[in-house]
Parts: sequence; C-alpha cells; structure tokens
Amino acid sequence: MSSTFPLFVVAGIGDGSGTGAATARLFAKAGYAVALISRREDALNQFKDELSGGASRANVAAFPVDEYSGKSIQSAFASIKSTFPRSPLRVALWNAGAAVWKPFLETTSEDVLTVTCINIAGAFAFAHEVLQIFTAQEPETAAEGGLAGDKQTKGTLLFSGATASVRGTEKTAAFAAGKHGIRALAQSLAKEFGKQNIHVAHAIIDGNILTEKFAHKNDPEYVKNANVRLDPSSIAEAYEYLVKQDCSSWTWELDLRPAHEQW
Amino acid sequence: MSSTFPLFVVAGIGDGSGTGAATARLFAKAGYAVALISRREDALNQFKDELSGGASRANVAAFPVDEYSGKSIQSAFASIKSTFPRSPLRVALWNAGAAVWKPFLETTSEDVLTVTCINIAGAFAFAHEVLQIFTAQEPETAAEGGLAGDKQTKGTLLFSGATASVRGTEKTAAFAAGKHGIRALAQSLAKEFGKQNIHVAHAIIDGNILTEKFAHKNDPEYVKNANVRLDPSSIAEAYEYLVKQDCSSWTWELDLRPAHEQW
Amino acid sequence: MSSTFPLFVVAGIGDGSGTGAATARLFAKAGYAVALISRREDALNQFKDELSGGASRANVAAFPVDEYSGKSIQSAFASIKSTFPRSPLRVALWNAGAAVWKPFLETTSEDVLTVTCINIAGAFAFAHEVLQIFTAQEPETAAEGGLAGDKQTKGTLLFSGATASVRGTEKTAAFAAGKHGIRALAQSLAKEFGKQNIHVAHAIIDGNILTEKFAHKNDPEYVKNANVRLDPSSIAEAYEYLVKQDCSSWTWELDLRPAHEQW
Amino acid sequence: MSSTFPLFVVAGIGDGSGTGAATARLFAKAGYAVALISRREDALNQFKDELSGGASRANVAAFPVDEYSGKSIQSAFASIKSTFPRSPLRVALWNAGAAVWKPFLETTSEDVLTVTCINIAGAFAFAHEVLQIFTAQEPETAAEGGLAGDKQTKGTLLFSGATASVRGTEKTAAFAAGKHGIRALAQSLAKEFGKQNIHVAHAIIDGNILTEKFAHKNDPEYVKNANVRLDPSSIAEAYEYLVKQDCSSWTWELDLRPAHEQW
Repeated sequence: MSSTFPLFVVAGIGDGSGTGAATARLFAKAGYAVALISRREDALNQFKDELSGGASRANVAAFPVDEYSGKSIQSAFASIKSTFPRSPLRVALWNAGAAVWKPFLETTSEDVLTVTCINIAGAFAFAHEVLQIFTAQEPETAAEGGLAGDKQTKGTLLFSGATASVRGTEKTAAFAAGKHGIRALAQSLAKEFGKQNIHVAHAIIDGNILTEKFAHKNDPEYVKNANVRLDPSSIAEAYEYLVKQDCSSWTWELDLRPAHEQW
Repeated sequence: MSSTFPLFVVAGIGDGSGTGAATARLFAKAGYAVALISRREDALNQFKDELSGGASRANVAAFPVDEYSGKSIQSAFASIKSTFPRSPLRVALWNAGAAVWKPFLETTSEDVLTVTCINIAGAFAFAHEVLQIFTAQEPETAAEGGLAGDKQTKGTLLFSGATASVRGTEKTAAFAAGKHGIRALAQSLAKEFGKQNIHVAHAIIDGNILTEKFAHKNDPEYVKNANVRLDPSSIAEAYEYLVKQDCSSWTWELDLRPAHEQW
Repeated sequence: MSSTFPLFVVAGIGDGSGTGAATARLFAKAGYAVALISRREDALNQFKDELSGGASRANVAAFPVDEYSGKSIQSAFASIKSTFPRSPLRVALWNAGAAVWKPFLETTSEDVLTVTCINIAGAFAFAHEVLQIFTAQEPETAAEGGLAGDKQTKGTLLFSGATASVRGTEKTAAFAAGKHGIRALAQSLAKEFGKQNIHVAHAIIDGNILTEKFAHKNDPEYVKNANVRLDPSSIAEAYEYLVKQDCSSWTWELDLRPAHEQW
Repeated sequence: MSSTFPLFVVAGIGDGSGTGAATARLFAKAGYAVALISRREDALNQFKDELSGGASRANVAAFPVDEYSGKSIQSAFASIKSTFPRSPLRVALWNAGAAVWKPFLETTSEDVLTVTCINIAGAFAFAHEVLQIFTAQEPETAAEGGLAGDKQTKGTLLFSGATASVRGTEKTAAFAAGKHGIRALAQSLAKEFGKQNIHVAHAIIDGNILTEKFAHKNDPEYVKNANVRLDPSSIAEAYEYLVKQDCSSWTWELDLRPAHEQW
C-alpha cells in the first residue's frame, strides 16, 4: 500500500463515531491517505474498513497500539512510514486521551497515570515523531493536492483540547492536569516551530460531542438539537479550516462550543 | 437602492486597504449587500466606488460618521435600514478603533477619550443596533444565499481585536484598556445571545497587518514575505469561516498571527 | 493641616463600610495621613469624622468630587498636595466605580458612560496624578515610618478589581468592559513603572463584600458566616501585605474569595 | 521526637538555599514542627541540622525520597505521622520539581518523564496525603499557636509555580507541561476543598530565585540587587501571608516577580 497523496495521521479513533473519526473521514474525502492510530483494535479495524470501502475508497491503514507510550508511538510511526513511503505527512491530529471525573480523594494513582502521565507522554511522543518529519521536508506544493496548497506550510499539527485544558474544576484534577499539560506542549510547539513554517494549533472543545455513546444515552430530541452538542463533523471542519489558513494568519487556538452551551 | 440579498455591515474601513475593506470585498463577492460605516469620508467613498464597480458590481452604500458615538451609530443604522429595506442583516463587523503607543505619563486625557472611551462606547452602540435587529429576526435560510446557510443562525457579530485585547504592556495602557473593554463586551454578548442563536466572535489579531500604509513604510522584500505580516484577505477568510460555522460548534475567540511572529 | 507622616490616598469610599473605608482605617492606624476622594459628600464627611476622631486621631482630609472625571481628580490632587505639603505620597488605592447588571439590550448609553468610560477615565486620571508624584520622589526610607520601610519602593498603586475584570458574563457587558479596561491599565503600569521601583498591583475581588448595605439585605446567619462573604478589613490586609512586599518579590495580581465561594 | 506544635511539611529542599528551605526556616521560627521531604539526602540532612540547631532549635525531621513517586510520598507521610504523632498538620508546600530547557526535538522521553510525569504524579500523591489529613481534622484554634490562628482553616496547601505554569514557550515544552498540570491540580483542589475550609493556593514565581547556585554563577553586583532576582525569604513571606488569610478572603493565585523583571 503506497501513495503519492499527502498523508493525514490521527491518534485517537475511539469507537469510530467521534472527532478523530470525523476528521479522518473529511481528510480521506479530500484525497489524503489516512493513517489511524488507536487503542481499541476492533473499533479501529471496523472504522478502517468503513473508510476504505464505500465511495471514498480511501487509502487507509490502521496502526493499533496497546497504550500511548513513547515506544508504541515510535513503532506506529515506523510502520506508517513503510506503509506510505511516498506520501508526505502533512496533517497530524492528536485526539487521544481518556477522561476521568472523580472527587479528588477517590482519584487513584492509576487514574493519574492514565489520564495525566500517559496522555501527556503520548502527546509528546506523537509530536516528536510528527515534527521530525515536518522539519525535514519542504513546504507543501499545490501539485500535491493537499488542503494547505501553495501556502508555505510544511505541515499542520493539531491537538484536540477541552474546557479542562484551560480550567481546573471540582472532579477534574487529573483530567485537567493532563489537558493543561498538552495545551502547554501545543503552545510551546506553536512558538518554536512557527518560524519553520510548521503550523501547530489547539482546539478547546467545550461541550458534549455527539458520539454514538452520547446519542444512545440521551433523549432523541436532545440528540437532534444541534444547538446543544458538538457535531464531530463540524469539529473536523474547524480542523480543515486551520489546515487551509495561509502562513500570514495562523490560528494557534480557537474554542468550539454549541450555540446554547452555558459558559 | 434595495436588495433581497443578505446584508453585511462593517464599521471601520480606514484607508480601504485593511481588514474592514478586505472583509467587505469578500462578502460583496459572496453576494451580500454591503453597508460601510467609517470616519474618513473620502477614503470611504473611494472604497465604495471600488466595490460597487468592477466585476462584483456589489450593492454597496457608504455611511460616513463624524465619530463612533452612540448617536452617529444610531443615525447610520437608521440610514442603512432605509437604504436596504429588504435585506436581512446577517453579518456585522466592528473593526473600528484608533491605536496609540505612548509612555503612560505622556498619554493625555484626549488619548484616553479617543482610544478607550469612544472605542468602547462606539462598539456598544454598534452591538446594540445589530442585536436589536438580530434578535427580532428568524434564522437565516438556505434560500437567502448567505454564507451561514441553513444552520440556525440569526446573525453573526464579529469584533476585530488585537494582542492588546488580552495583554497590557508598556506604552499600551490606553489602547489596551479600550481593547480589553471591547473583548469583555464580546464575551458577554457571546454568552447572552448564543442562546438566541446569535453568534458573537472575537479575533485576536497579533501582528502587523499588510495595509497600504504598512507597505509604503517597509522594505519590499519584507512586505512580500507572507510569514511576517497578516494579509487582510486572510483575516477576512477567518471571518468567513466563523460565519459558516454551524450552531453545534461555534468559536467565540481565535487568534491570528503570521507564521514567523514572535509571541 | 500638615504632616511628616507618609500619605495614603484612596478614591472610592462609598457609604464608609466597604473596601476603601477599611483600607483607610488600616493605613490610618498604621500611622499614615489619609486623603479620601469620593463622590458621596455626606457619607465621605461622616467617614472622615469617624477616622479623625476616636483612638487613632488620624490626620485625615476629605476631597469630595462630583464625578471621577480627569478634571475633578486633578483638582482633588491639587488640594491634597496643599493640605499635606510635607507628607510623601506612598500608597494610593483606586477603589471607585459603580456596577450595573442588566441584559444587554436594556443597557443604556448612559450606563456605558457611567460604568465604563467614566470608571476608566477616572482610573487613568488617578494613576496619572499618582505616578507623576511617585516618579519624582526617592524610595521610602525606614525613618518615614511607612509600611514599605526600607525596601526600595517609591510608592504602591493599588486597584480594586472584580471577577468582571477577567470575565465577561451575561448582564455584565458594561461593568466588565470597565473592569477589564482598568485591569489592562494596571498591567501596563506594573510593567512600565516596576523598573522605576513603583509597585502597581491589582486585586480580583470575587464575591460579595460585607458592606452595611449587604448586611441589611441578608439573613444575619449568612452575614455572620465569614466563609461566604469578604470582610473589607481582610481585603485591606491584602493591600497591607502588597505594600510590605520587598522589591525582589512583588505581586501584580492576586484574587480574594470567600472559602465557600463557587467559582 | 514528638510535638504539640502545628506541623509544616515541605517537599523540595534542593540544596537548602531556595524557596523550600526559606519557607521551612520561616515556619520553624514561627513555632511549627517541620517535616522535610527531599531527594538529595546529603543536602537534606545538612539543612535539617542547620534548622534544628541554632537559635530556633526547631523540631525538624528529614524524610529523604528516591523520587517523587506515589509510593515514596506515601511512605514519607507514614514516617511523618509516626515522627510527629501529636502535631496537627496545618501547612504543606509542594516545592519540588526539576526544570529542563531544551529545543523540543532534543527533549527526550526521559526528560518528559522526569519534569512532567513524575512532577505531576508526585504533586498528586503529596496533595492526596495532605488532603486526607486536612479533611479529617477540625479547624485550627488560636491555642495551637499556628499562623492561621482562629480563622476556621483546617489547613493550607501551597504550590510553587513558575511562569511556565501559565505559558508555554520555546524550549519549555516539557517543563511547562509539568507546571501547567500542577496548576490545574491546584485550581481543582482550591475549588473542591475551599468548601471544607481547606485553603489551596498557587504562586507563580516569575524570575530567577537567589539560591546559592544562582549567586555563584552571577556577578556579585547583580546578586546584591534585590530588584532583579527573587529572595527566597520574600517568597516565604508570601506563603506566610497566604496561611494567615482569613476564610472570608482567600487567595488562590498570586504572582511574585522582581521589580525590574521584564514581562
């Protein structure tokens, strides 16, 4: 499996119905080869099949990992490079990370490890792999057919954040610590690599995301009401816009929130 | 002069080469009728002529004001309504406001009045006129031909901010006070009117904008380098994206910055 | 009336039971001459009498103003200088400013003028007068008997802020705009004048303050509960601590909030 | 070794010349028993000897740890409890944490582990031990002789932060991620435990701290100049003030910065 198309890599596909999946769909449709990194192998393979089948017939490959450790991320990227030897990596999305909502004294060191340390270490390892590739390559050209086009961008590295990225609240100590850490990473990278024409951006996603799980748990009227929950495909469109921005006007951070969300 | 097209209103056209003008061009091209509010009557009329002539043949009208006082803003909106009686107002951009950079003890009460009080009072009056119209109307429909389409949006109110919107620094006491005030206004409005399907957004524009004045003052090589200054048309594209967002995923704030900007 | 004591100036005494009054009491007790600027002349004079009588026998003078315009502030400072010709001004507190809580469309241009423009313009004029004095004088000495002692401080300029200083919310558009503006001023001044050994600090007071008005309106059990409302004398102690900080470790901003406040 | 004095615990003593040590000195002098947790056993014991000797004759014990893992922190607290069986823990300071300044692509997974994961996990474990004790005890009484006195405080948990706690910059990706994470923890805890009369506060220390190492590396004139570097004893005074605050007016966050620091 190889391709001359630009390559999109995403980490964090979950059950195939959320932000990571919707963004993969959008980039597949736009002509990107797609590399999917995720932990839940069954859901991952099912989503891969969905994406490679159908009208889009996208060039997709799945790279399951046990956990988002540095080693498994490195190993996934080694496989990605050999799977897509001719596709320049142009867009990467870090969308991984579990959440936990618990009173602090019920939060275990295992929780801290999972939603804080591993999340952050995984994001660092992912960014390291991506930026080694981005820094070594030339800016995208229009001929490549990618979304950034002829705008002097070597690549775009995206991070999915949450309200917990900017505010610690009761019951979110561990989750917020992880999300704050990743935001600090993203901001540092935006400042360091902007000068090398690498675009790093962070989205603060504030509200419930309309995943299958969310849809099953809630009243159908509520689920239908676009004003109260985020559509994964709308988040994907935000990422698409960020990738398309020209280098004179890059966004490092934006928030995304349903119209009726209280904040 | 009247129209069934959706209407775009902008305050702050300057010399016709900056953000306000570029955004007016973009919305004119997208089929909007355009109402221009600005203080510099000559530049305003010249820009109006540019916009209404040429290929776009846009439906444009100019509404000069002496200053951005409540009264002159109200009077401009009265004229806008009678000029475009059948065009529903759908997008409004507050792009006005002078800047001043001075050591604090050289800052005069006149400076404070101009870059702080009048800026803020003007923004409040503008928002008041716009929101009276937005709250009284139904959401946009696809048939209207506007950029928001069938996405449950009654209207979008945009504010052009700056780094001074989020940080006071030496020599910016007065300018930052005005910009902080307008950001507080925008955030309050986003929270109050989101629930009524009115989208309020604020852009932190961090860097030099490529206006004619900037181009004349700088080295041509520097001016050509998109990595170091903001293209007004790229800022306009950010506004276009914000208008197109669906109500499940609205942005209240994003920053825009050249790739090589130090921050 | 004259003095060799250091001088404390405060603007905003209200009904004599809040933050400004408590801070004046603390500095009077610490041996400062006290200049009171306020709008409500009756309450101002009553508070002056309270302060100059009793055990403290403080050297106090009242300077009523019609409003916090640049002119009336300048005129008050001219009177202060002639009233206390030998007292070096060492601490100044801007505690003035009305609040308004209204849905945006009910907010009038008069509200904007009062709680935004005049508040900000008043704060600028106050800071201007204070900083002209501070920059022209030598650092405080231990012999002076002030709270800063021999710590290389020329003077301390304090601002009372609120939650609205950092967040716009529904119904606070005008109030938050004013408070954001003053915070931007304070931050700019801290950066510009720190280098000249002038300490500028801003307190975000988040919660109800136990004024007489608050006490009359609420249940006595609630009023007695220190966990739910701010004691003006505790806020005054925060200001005292800020004045005492040595120049190696100055605070520009702190928040103050009752233990049980939800935030 | 036992005591009826209130107990102060600090993690992070370094070489005995910085913030942790200065704060231990201050609380020892104020009559607290002192428990020192730190990694560098030699420096730790030397500092313990300094503190327990001399005029203060403080009741001090040292609890060396190999690293700030959950287990070693738990084990240290078990020893602390048996060493000071009758001293109620009233003040705890998390001052640990290494820093690293490196271009991102030179940052190793070992760096991330050390300055991010371990820092954060250590802070969580420390907070867990402290809050288990705080929540189980009654508020401090005046008879106890502690600094909080009769102010309804069960205990105060302090965190030493840095500029990197609120801003990611070039070369600080890993350090900032760790510091952001700890700030999120501190904010979450302040919100959750304030209601239980437990005071959690976070200091943003912005500038060089005058440790022995700093003094040796810099010009003596520079070292003497209090305007350009933070005195550890001044930081300790900030912590003292925070402990003394009454429950009507608690600070969750303040910054500390030399007068001439550029920011």
